[in-house]
Amino acid sequence: MTGAASGPAIGIDIGGTKILGAVIDSHGTVLEEHRVPSPGGWNEIRASVTEVVAQLRQRFPSVVAVGVGAAGMVTMEGTIQYSPNVLGFRSAPVRSELESAFGLTVTVDNDANVAAYAEHRLGAARGATDAMVITLGTGIGGGIIVGGKMLRGAHGFAGEVGHFQIDPDGPMCACGERGHWEALASGSALGRMGRAAVASGDAPNILAAADGNPDAIEGRHVSKAARAGAPDALTLIDHFCENVATGLVALANIFDPTVIAIAGGLVNDKELFIEPIRVHFVGHIEGADYRPIPAVVAAELGENAGVIGAAIMALDACN
Amino acid sequence: MTGAASGPAIGIDIGGTKILGAVIDSHGTVLEEHRVPSPGGWNEIRASVTEVVAQLRQRFPSVVAVGVGAAGMVTMEGTIQYSPNVLGFRSAPVRSELESAFGLTVTVDNDANVAAYAEHRLGAARGATDAMVITLGTGIGGGIIVGGKMLRGAHGFAGEVGHFQIDPDGPMCACGERGHWEALASGSALGRMGRAAVASGDAPNILAAADGNPDAIEGRHVSKAARAGAPDALTLIDHFCENVATGLVALANIFDPTVIAIAGGLVNDKELFIEPIRVHFVGHIEGADYRPIPAVVAAELGENAGVIGAAIMALDACN
Repeated sequence: MTGAASGPAIGIDIGGTKILGAVIDSHGTVLEEHRVPSPGGWNEIRASVTEVVAQLRQRFPSVVAVGVGAAGMVTMEGTIQYSPNVLGFRSAPVRSELESAFGLTVTVDNDANVAAYAEHRLGAARGATDAMVITLGTGIGGGIIVGGKMLRGAHGFAGEVGHFQIDPDGPMCACGERGHWEALASGSALGRMGRAAVASGDAPNILAAADGNPDAIEGRHVSKAARAGAPDALTLIDHFCENVATGLVALANIFDPTVIAIAGGLVNDKELFIEPIRVHFVGHIEGADYRPIPAVVAAELGENAGVIGAAIMALDACN
Repeated sequence: MTGAASGPAIGIDIGGTKILGAVIDSHGTVLEEHRVPSPGGWNEIRASVTEVVAQLRQRFPSVVAVGVGAAGMVTMEGTIQYSPNVLGFRSAPVRSELESAFGLTVTVDNDANVAAYAEHRLGAARGATDAMVITLGTGIGGGIIVGGKMLRGAHGFAGEVGHFQIDPDGPMCACGERGHWEALASGSALGRMGRAAVASGDAPNILAAADGNPDAIEGRHVSKAARAGAPDALTLIDHFCENVATGLVALANIFDPTVIAIAGGLVNDKELFIEPIRVHFVGHIEGADYRPIPAVVAAELGENAGVIGAAIMALDACN
């Protein structure tokens, strides 16, 4: 399935709060994992990654490669150039420094790209030549497969799909621009929408789901109330799903994919999120009566997609 | 430059009001052209195209291929599946029927794609592996080059870049959706903005540029008044250029190109349009301080880009 190098490989997911490392075989199976908190700067993160890899290699000496996924803009050379709001460093030569440290092939890509890589190779988008994997979490990340290959752009920065304006009067995005898709359709956005609805007095059930504490409301409280059938929460989720669909329509009109896989812990509920998103999507895509409509499906690999995709990408780079 | 088949080839541009045919050599030079009005249905258009090609082949018997560009969604097989607002037909097997009629290689693609093909091979985007050619005319068309190749998507419908929402309260798009980029940043949109400004009494100079007839105002009247230094027109054009930039930022965040070429008769004025678009663009692109900024430039091939690109694409298909 993954060519000559049969692994295993280590996948590393560098996030804002934790570093997750896992040993992955060529079928995408997680053999072992290890996680540590994510310290601030690149020097500290490099030390933590080195420690995680050393521990995993001790148990799996046959590891042949290390793949890294990290939040931010990653160059073709594997330098983390810029991270809008997650990591506390800029212009870090991650690939070259880790390759020297480990003496193994190392690949580095954006966290959304490695998750998409996994879904394309082994998950919800497998077999598709043109697909989009969209992760709705703290922000919105995207990995776009064009003609069977990951879209990287001229410098590696392609696929920043959360950052286009869908409403000039919308809320401020974490990047500092107003009304970006990410500000209206990420997991965080659902929490913000819940807090706003409660503040305006329209959402007693959402408030109750957060034990009456309006400041504690997150997306999961909205979905909890909705699962119990609360109309205020269901209305809000429908509006949220419409926001999600607005961005998916934009991307589908641009990319003409066959599959759109939606990732992210919150939205991985087919009935509550995926199906309403699909209905809004079909209602607005260009030329719906005259074209094959892309399938809108839930991603399959869950929160391990990042480490799996990073490891498989590194294995592929050995071949 | 175009490989083994050295041409010439015929490029055909099927638009809403005219069919333009031209004999093009492998350097993109127009050797001869012929245009006829564009009748309604596919049967009539096929007859007109056949006549245009016959006339041009009589003068250039060495023609080796025919390339067609047409407004609408064109499948990989060269069928015009759907045309939102320009052509009066659906599901026409253009490539196969013309190939039978001519006994030559025929290629068919979207009008914006063939124009982009020309700009990429011979014009403003030549040499770029990742580029966008955006045509601002009656609507907005786009041709996106990814890794040196035209983005076609799974079925040929990729690159419908005009149809994403940038303002939920914006004007209705020709496609029936509200606030699409095309409704706010096409050449037609500038005319609509001019008429609205005049209707609200804020634009005496724009009204004067249209000889005092508010219903006759088009984009060219706004630009005429602006070129004469009229502040009402200059304000409006700045707002229009901001709308254009909003969409370009979205696409550049997604594609990470090195060059963005802007085509369309109206906007081909560097000082009045391209430079303000560029300034707004640079002000909003993601990570501007940490990445190479794509160049925003005027397209170079003018209104012949369509026939040139169609012909060169057909020549390339022979090789």
